[in-house]
Amino acid sequence: MGPQPLKRAPPLVRRRALSFENGGSPDVHTGSFLLSPIVVSWRRTSHHPPPAPRVFHPPSSCMSAVLCFKCQSVLCQVPVKVMLPVIVIHGGAGHIPKERAQLSCAGVREAARGGYGILRASGSAMDAVVEAVTMLENNPAYNAGRGSVLNVKGEVEMDAIVMDGRTLDSGAVSAVRRVANPVQLARLVMEKTKHLCLTAEGASQFARAMGIPEVPEESLITDYARMRWKKNLAPDANPVECQMGKMGTVGAVAVDTEGNVACATSTGGMINKMEGRVGDTPCIGCGGYADNKVGAVSPTGHGEAIMKVTLSRLILFHMEQGRSAEEASDLGLAYMKERVQGLGGVVTVDPKGAWAARFSSLQMAWAAVQDEQLHYGLYAGEHFTESAQEQS
Amino acid sequence: MGPQPLKRAPPLVRRRALSFENGGSPDVHTGSFLLSPIVVSWRRTSHHPPPAPRVFHPPSSCMSAVLCFKCQSVLCQVPVKVMLPVIVIHGGAGHIPKERAQLSCAGVREAARGGYGILRASGSAMDAVVEAVTMLENNPAYNAGRGSVLNVKGEVEMDAIVMDGRTLDSGAVSAVRRVANPVQLARLVMEKTKHLCLTAEGASQFARAMGIPEVPEESLITDYARMRWKKNLAPDANPVECQMGKMGTVGAVAVDTEGNVACATSTGGMINKMEGRVGDTPCIGCGGYADNKVGAVSPTGHGEAIMKVTLSRLILFHMEQGRSAEEASDLGLAYMKERVQGLGGVVTVDPKGAWAARFSSLQMAWAAVQDEQLHYGLYAGEHFTESAQEQS
Repeated sequence: MGPQPLKRAPPLVRRRALSFENGGSPDVHTGSFLLSPIVVSWRRTSHHPPPAPRVFHPPSSCMSAVLCFKCQSVLCQVPVKVMLPVIVIHGGAGHIPKERAQLSCAGVREAARGGYGILRASGSAMDAVVEAVTMLENNPAYNAGRGSVLNVKGEVEMDAIVMDGRTLDSGAVSAVRRVANPVQLARLVMEKTKHLCLTAEGASQFARAMGIPEVPEESLITDYARMRWKKNLAPDANPVECQMGKMGTVGAVAVDTEGNVACATSTGGMINKMEGRVGDTPCIGCGGYADNKVGAVSPTGHGEAIMKVTLSRLILFHMEQGRSAEEASDLGLAYMKERVQGLGGVVTVDPKGAWAARFSSLQMAWAAVQDEQLHYGLYAGEHFTESAQEQS
Repeated sequence: MGPQPLKRAPPLVRRRALSFENGGSPDVHTGSFLLSPIVVSWRRTSHHPPPAPRVFHPPSSCMSAVLCFKCQSVLCQVPVKVMLPVIVIHGGAGHIPKERAQLSCAGVREAARGGYGILRASGSAMDAVVEAVTMLENNPAYNAGRGSVLNVKGEVEMDAIVMDGRTLDSGAVSAVRRVANPVQLARLVMEKTKHLCLTAEGASQFARAMGIPEVPEESLITDYARMRWKKNLAPDANPVECQMGKMGTVGAVAVDTEGNVACATSTGGMINKMEGRVGDTPCIGCGGYADNKVGAVSPTGHGEAIMKVTLSRLILFHMEQGRSAEEASDLGLAYMKERVQGLGGVVTVDPKGAWAARFSSLQMAWAAVQDEQLHYGLYAGEHFTESAQEQS
């Protein structure tokens, strides 16, 4: 259907469109926003009639409208597909051993489907990311929950964070022991306390107060994690190389049907780390950030490098300045590589549903679901798709 | 002395000036930089001869030169005072009880003089901020080190961070017990481990390994802290009001004579907090950030609000986009108030020595030393000066 004149949009809608897009900056000349369930694109023009409409072409049947900036009238309206909801998952960046690659890829696809199921049933972005990360924590193929790497003493200490883009509320736990799902405990910190982060024994006490069962440490330790711990204790071990070998932090970002964003990240941390080491994951702005006005990010990689550049917040600053989720992710990762020689990867979304899964490491197991399509990959440039309904 | 023609500056100097100031952006037309010990200002012009020189007017005798962007010649050279070194200290934002205000103000002035003494003797910015914060930790008038507020169990758990703007290296400790100077332990984490943050018992183990003496918990607890803890245990206590009553986190930022920036922050946290609560202080980008390319920030105030907006990194992002230290600090604090209803304050420096001490709370005890002048204040708008040599 071609452009056709329509009656003027209601004043309220027009005002929201402009104030949302301009955000006080006189230099923004074009944009689009979601006024659920209508995706609206507009172009600021200094003359009337305006130039050809800029049409938004995201993937569910919905209407896109184009407004003239000067006269405020709706110029045309075309049916488009909405991009929401969407979920993007990672299972860690680094070098994934061949024998574990298939398991790793299967897990993120399954988690993406699990999270998307919640979104499709009108669940919140927060519900979806916590469900997806819980699935990955329960999967021994990842360095989070069951399967976590061991600290230098052979113990499991885990970090996790969640953040809700509606309110900037966040919850985190650091160096927590003997809980099956640190991401769920992080969510309880956000919802049930006035704090944002609890650490170590204080986090365990809170878990008990919330009725979360304590699990035996052994139940979190896999033979693979124990083998790698022992190998790294050897005097001739190269901890950096081993570290880069598998950094299986897990994370998820999502946008729900209402345009709310959320992120969740969970990890066992760095292999053979000192007792009490806290990495980027529970540190807001580093191990994740979510803001409905900009987007959400969950990173993976060399935690100390991610911290030095506050990677998640950095990527969202680039998006605030007009970069796409993909451009901003690439800029943030390139800066981390150049400034502090750190490799890693991120999954990123913006509130309209544009998403990215980018990495500077050799591999990152990732998967996304949008518009009933499952996208996934492992090496740079890989992008496979299949129906989200298919079972792997 | 008026402008007078001089011989051309050496090519290396000119090239550094331009690459430093442009930073890849074609839109920057004027600027200044420090090539120790010469402060150089220049103006990019598209024609020759260039317009009237833009002279830099900071405070010690040194030379300022003006270059023509086109012909690269030095147009004039005038004696100016260098702005470096500088140190800015805070002793916490909030509402400081009358009977404690004088103590609080005297302590920050003393710490500023202490830190400045190191800078004047060509010490590093890192040495200066750690010295200043150590002095405040040892002073029972502040909520850091001795004088820390108590958690809900009546115990002391402290957080601290340092960051070095040269390398983005940082060190932090969270929920650490029984050490007199958490800021010094944070610095050891940065210098002696490959990690950026150690928490709780792991941090204590590291302290023992470093030979830091364990101090009795009682030595950190003041009668005042115990009185406030008991008062807040009462069923009718208003923890938020009490919290706002005194948020005496301490912090410092500095620029040394070589233009390196650093920050340090230390706190006992939030009064009657849950055991294991980690606030903004040890979280990089929240409780502090330092980058030689931009500046350094140390904040104080409602920790959870500071975290939600990653206040320190936010302020430095504004500075990266051309805002002054003062403008950026005000923008960051205003955003925190509007977006998450949080009050607080910050001390901020840029690598050229411009500095700010700004707050949205009723009071913030602050002091700065630059060019042998001590500046200090407590209420908004207060700005007293005296010679840095005078003893309070």
